[in-house]
Amino acid sequence: MRMGRTVNFEEELERKKQNVEEVILRYLPREHGFAETMARAMNYSMQAGGKRLRPILLGETWKMFGGKGAVAEPFMAAIEMIHTHSLIHDDLPALDNDDYRRGRLTTHKVFGEAMGILGGDALLNYAYEIMLTAFDLTDNPRSVAVAARIMADKTGIHGMLGGQSADVENEGKPITREVLDYIYENKTSALIEASMMAGATLAGAGKQEVRVVEKAARSIGLAFQIRDDILDVTGEEKEIGKPVHSDERNRKVTYVTLMGVEAAADQVRRLSDEALGLLDGLDQKNEFLRLLVNQLVSRRN
Amino acid sequence: MRMGRTVNFEEELERKKQNVEEVILRYLPREHGFAETMARAMNYSMQAGGKRLRPILLGETWKMFGGKGAVAEPFMAAIEMIHTHSLIHDDLPALDNDDYRRGRLTTHKVFGEAMGILGGDALLNYAYEIMLTAFDLTDNPRSVAVAARIMADKTGIHGMLGGQSADVENEGKPITREVLDYIYENKTSALIEASMMAGATLAGAGKQEVRVVEKAARSIGLAFQIRDDILDVTGEEKEIGKPVHSDERNRKVTYVTLMGVEAAADQVRRLSDEALGLLDGLDQKNEFLRLLVNQLVSRRN
Repeated sequence: MRMGRTVNFEEELERKKQNVEEVILRYLPREHGFAETMARAMNYSMQAGGKRLRPILLGETWKMFGGKGAVAEPFMAAIEMIHTHSLIHDDLPALDNDDYRRGRLTTHKVFGEAMGILGGDALLNYAYEIMLTAFDLTDNPRSVAVAARIMADKTGIHGMLGGQSADVENEGKPITREVLDYIYENKTSALIEASMMAGATLAGAGKQEVRVVEKAARSIGLAFQIRDDILDVTGEEKEIGKPVHSDERNRKVTYVTLMGVEAAADQVRRLSDEALGLLDGLDQKNEFLRLLVNQLVSRRN
Repeated sequence: MRMGRTVNFEEELERKKQNVEEVILRYLPREHGFAETMARAMNYSMQAGGKRLRPILLGETWKMFGGKGAVAEPFMAAIEMIHTHSLIHDDLPALDNDDYRRGRLTTHKVFGEAMGILGGDALLNYAYEIMLTAFDLTDNPRSVAVAARIMADKTGIHGMLGGQSADVENEGKPITREVLDYIYENKTSALIEASMMAGATLAGAGKQEVRVVEKAARSIGLAFQIRDDILDVTGEEKEIGKPVHSDERNRKVTYVTLMGVEAAADQVRRLSDEALGLLDGLDQKNEFLRLLVNQLVSRRN
């Protein structure tokens, strides 16, 4: 997967994003029958755009370890469904109470609060329905079982949902660096870890390699989140697509409020160097993945 | 599993319920760390009692097909977690808005609405975390994969959650028998089907046998739900533990409002006879399961 020097990274990223869109579309539920509204709510939220970062990372790590066939595709759709489920529930009145996301009305504003809750549940569950179909696409069922287990562990109370729990509980409170790290490592890094670890596992990577990928993914997730904190202070509203200085207004503790913009930027560089160093130490290479990590930590939106 | 004539059914049921309680307890998350509140919310709702019908049906169908070892246990805990997840979300203000369940405050009343939503999510996800550990407990990974897939399909938009979607959408509307059947078969029967089908699959039952079990389970679930409709009209509040005549007050369409108590009772008998006939037609026998089905459709609470 080494890229020719003439291929433009942005074009390549766009092409990969298009591929993810096609995969997702193939796995969405049909809008018919007595649960049609639920299917429409699921599809509405899944088709709201976004970076598709997690499925791309999953697919690229899978390719990096020589993955072949279609077995990664249901996992690519599944990780985006899990992520989208968390956004739908995060937007609910009892949580962040957001009416808009990416310029569109949030799911519960279109379909009502009850369907926001149930549609989010259905999306989380659908991720597993889809992942488990991957047993039909492989002659290595063990790798599918291990990958599915990684996805479940990183999504649940010991991963993303645990991070959300701590985030909700500490809202508006002055928190320590330790708690902030816990929230970032779980709310954000855990699904990045799941993406890259599942991709590696499905391609047949060994335990030791998957452990290295996990470490790299944790640093990437953390760097990605701290970059978000920085953009909230230094970004342009029309570029990042959401109001800036919202953390200051909401008295939210972030890396920037804890250590200032300069030190936070140093931290992002340190973390991304660490991640790239770990990936470079592996026998497998994926130059696009390297470029993607660099872009994620220097992005302006 | 043929029972001696001297063994009392109620005692045997109580013993099996105790066994389920022990299994569930073993699989609950530990209450520690930064997500401790989430763990407490999950455990609070899981320890609220109840019939434990689904895990018992799973375990009994598993035994009926000669299941051995501990592979059914994570599935028994998982099906109760999925069921409890649906109760927590059903009780939320945006859905049924119930403050009490089985005489205790509902989860969101104790832990707040945000934790009600996230704790319910975590319980649904935890079911998969646990189910996927079953690969370590078997030398037949295919049966675990198939059983997990059955659980996911019957839980999601084509099962329980689809039924909840239709239920929410049709609340307070005059609905046809067709819609009512769809709601009952999904909201209630689907998890009964998942329990019995997963139990059979894990024990090594063949596709044809699992299909018969599915049919029987559908009838059992339907009979169970219609019995609920009847108890709402003929039951005693202190016996069933919730207000009677609530369907009439809420102008809810049920089998009783559609066809009257007599015809509804006939339907329960017809469905339970059908289920027992299907189970009797199999080569495998489980006398306790027969007695349990009889008790479910004649229960007074």
